[in-house]
Amino acid sequence: MVQIVPVIMSGGSGTRLWPLSRTASPKQLHALVSEMTLVQETVMRVTGSEGDYVFTPPVIILNESQHELASRQLDALGVAPSHYVVEPFGRNTAAVAAVAAEVVEDTYGADALVLLLPADHHIRDVAAFRRAIAAGAELAAAGHIITFGIAPDRPETGYGYILRGEPVGEGYGVSAFKEKPDRARAEAFLADGRYYWNAGIFMFGAAAAKDEMARYCPQVLDASADAVRLAVREGAKVLLDGGALQDCPSISFDYAVMERTDRAAVVPADIGWSDVGSWNALWEIAGKDGDGNVARGDVEFVDTRNSYALSDGCKLGVVGMTDVVVVATADAVLVVDRSASQEVKTVVERLKAQDRTDLL
Amino acid sequence: MVQIVPVIMSGGSGTRLWPLSRTASPKQLHALVSEMTLVQETVMRVTGSEGDYVFTPPVIILNESQHELASRQLDALGVAPSHYVVEPFGRNTAAVAAVAAEVVEDTYGADALVLLLPADHHIRDVAAFRRAIAAGAELAAAGHIITFGIAPDRPETGYGYILRGEPVGEGYGVSAFKEKPDRARAEAFLADGRYYWNAGIFMFGAAAAKDEMARYCPQVLDASADAVRLAVREGAKVLLDGGALQDCPSISFDYAVMERTDRAAVVPADIGWSDVGSWNALWEIAGKDGDGNVARGDVEFVDTRNSYALSDGCKLGVVGMTDVVVVATADAVLVVDRSASQEVKTVVERLKAQDRTDLL
Repeated sequence: MVQIVPVIMSGGSGTRLWPLSRTASPKQLHALVSEMTLVQETVMRVTGSEGDYVFTPPVIILNESQHELASRQLDALGVAPSHYVVEPFGRNTAAVAAVAAEVVEDTYGADALVLLLPADHHIRDVAAFRRAIAAGAELAAAGHIITFGIAPDRPETGYGYILRGEPVGEGYGVSAFKEKPDRARAEAFLADGRYYWNAGIFMFGAAAAKDEMARYCPQVLDASADAVRLAVREGAKVLLDGGALQDCPSISFDYAVMERTDRAAVVPADIGWSDVGSWNALWEIAGKDGDGNVARGDVEFVDTRNSYALSDGCKLGVVGMTDVVVVATADAVLVVDRSASQEVKTVVERLKAQDRTDLL
Repeated sequence: MVQIVPVIMSGGSGTRLWPLSRTASPKQLHALVSEMTLVQETVMRVTGSEGDYVFTPPVIILNESQHELASRQLDALGVAPSHYVVEPFGRNTAAVAAVAAEVVEDTYGADALVLLLPADHHIRDVAAFRRAIAAGAELAAAGHIITFGIAPDRPETGYGYILRGEPVGEGYGVSAFKEKPDRARAEAFLADGRYYWNAGIFMFGAAAAKDEMARYCPQVLDASADAVRLAVREGAKVLLDGGALQDCPSISFDYAVMERTDRAAVVPADIGWSDVGSWNALWEIAGKDGDGNVARGDVEFVDTRNSYALSDGCKLGVVGMTDVVVVATADAVLVVDRSASQEVKTVVERLKAQDRTDLL
């Protein structure tokens, strides 16, 4: 059986779900959709075997401030990652892919497959997701570098798009990567039918990725290899060397490799995917009551429709409202119209300008 | 100079301003409009002298759970009430008026004038208010029992109305008291021009009120007099006797006396009055920024209009909203459309049903 090593990218500290998501407890460490946190859900999706493939224990990549909470959450599930790779600072996804390839090759050999997964996504149809992984693994084992494509169901302007090329196995070659489009182009992409959202989920053989990185972004590869080689190890914890990592360009894996290599392939994944990118996205994927409301925590809705309320402690009363999101934490409360969910970043920017690190 | 004794009715525990207003810290003990609490504002309105009249130190009527906080607030202003009359339980405003008449007569003699003031109202034009008091005092000194009438500026269905009669001094006789009307009647009252809102502010000579109560509600007067006579006194504190008070019918001063006596008079008071009866009322009377917003505490408004936000500690972000009220306390948060402000009581009723006394 071929081994697939899930490498979970858990280092983000997204601000779009403020005030719940904070630097030290970012969204992937919160139970937002189910009783499990997003990182717990991510890990539990890739266990056991699928077809001819077997999942190894995961590798978790994160930063120091998240390490304790994340490891406690995985301990609680009885999951023992082979490595917690701690980044002293973020260096974007190309560095993450390079570090992943190094660690996986060291541990499982050059033929092991790396499955690079963001820790903060929600996937509704796990069975379909695992079938897509198996399809991708076949192509990855044949030397391709895989990205998974989500068929768009709306003219989203917040994601990059992938234009598929000719069929290859259960996927397609990649004709082109497209930056986030404007509305008109997004509508054209949606109508065309050959475009997918780029979900930021990748799969590759460790050696194949290193080959391509040596060709297209050798500085990233070298600096990342040094950061792993010089890392301080302590049990499962691998503290990457900051000096080495400082020499690593901060660049995305898409830009550094995927848009350049002729080994790119896209595997369509009809999996009920969401990047949980806003409070409104969370309302959309959540189970609702008969009034279209979602309540998490100690919430009373009165004469309220199509709203989302989350309290992590206090009593929350929502009266006579429509289409509102209310999030109450111990030290901050957010009230936002669902249609303005993206503007939460304005509050976060103001807090940064006010140096309110206690709230970030 | 004739003495006017302000008797401040501070015993209420209104739930319409939940979650700020609670049993032990009701709305009159919060700084809602200015930097002063409503009871502080109420006391400071009736100091010094006005025309031929001089205000004595106030008498405060309240319940035990509010005594400590209220006395601290008045101490902070350097105000020393002559009495804190503590009700072991509420017995409505007829009993309050009777107790006030007894205490004032005991202290200042039968000719002293009692000015009975709710502690939880806001009055914008204090000079006009004081002029109305002086006009009322002249009538009260002549034996009338005065209620102050607010000229309606909208067809309000939440207040009782007074139909004025023939002119008497600077006021009018009372033709009729009208219960809270339905919308059509409220509109007719507004159009008529002879109707006033009954603001629940009364003025009378101590002896005159006792005469009328002896005639129209002798049980109230007797029980109240006993409650004062048997009270436990401790410095300025007068703890009314519960046993005596239990024999007192619970009835309003309007119903017990004003609607029956031929000594009733109404003095119009164009004073910018509000009973601060809902969060929307508070938004209406507050100073607003250019977007029509009111912020109290640590609030960030983003793309928000005509809204009210109050935080008593945490950071509050309000994004993309219109016509919303948000109130955040340490243990409870309320979000309500301004037009639904009266429905806050539904949340409070649910909390009662759930026996959540910690939140009430």
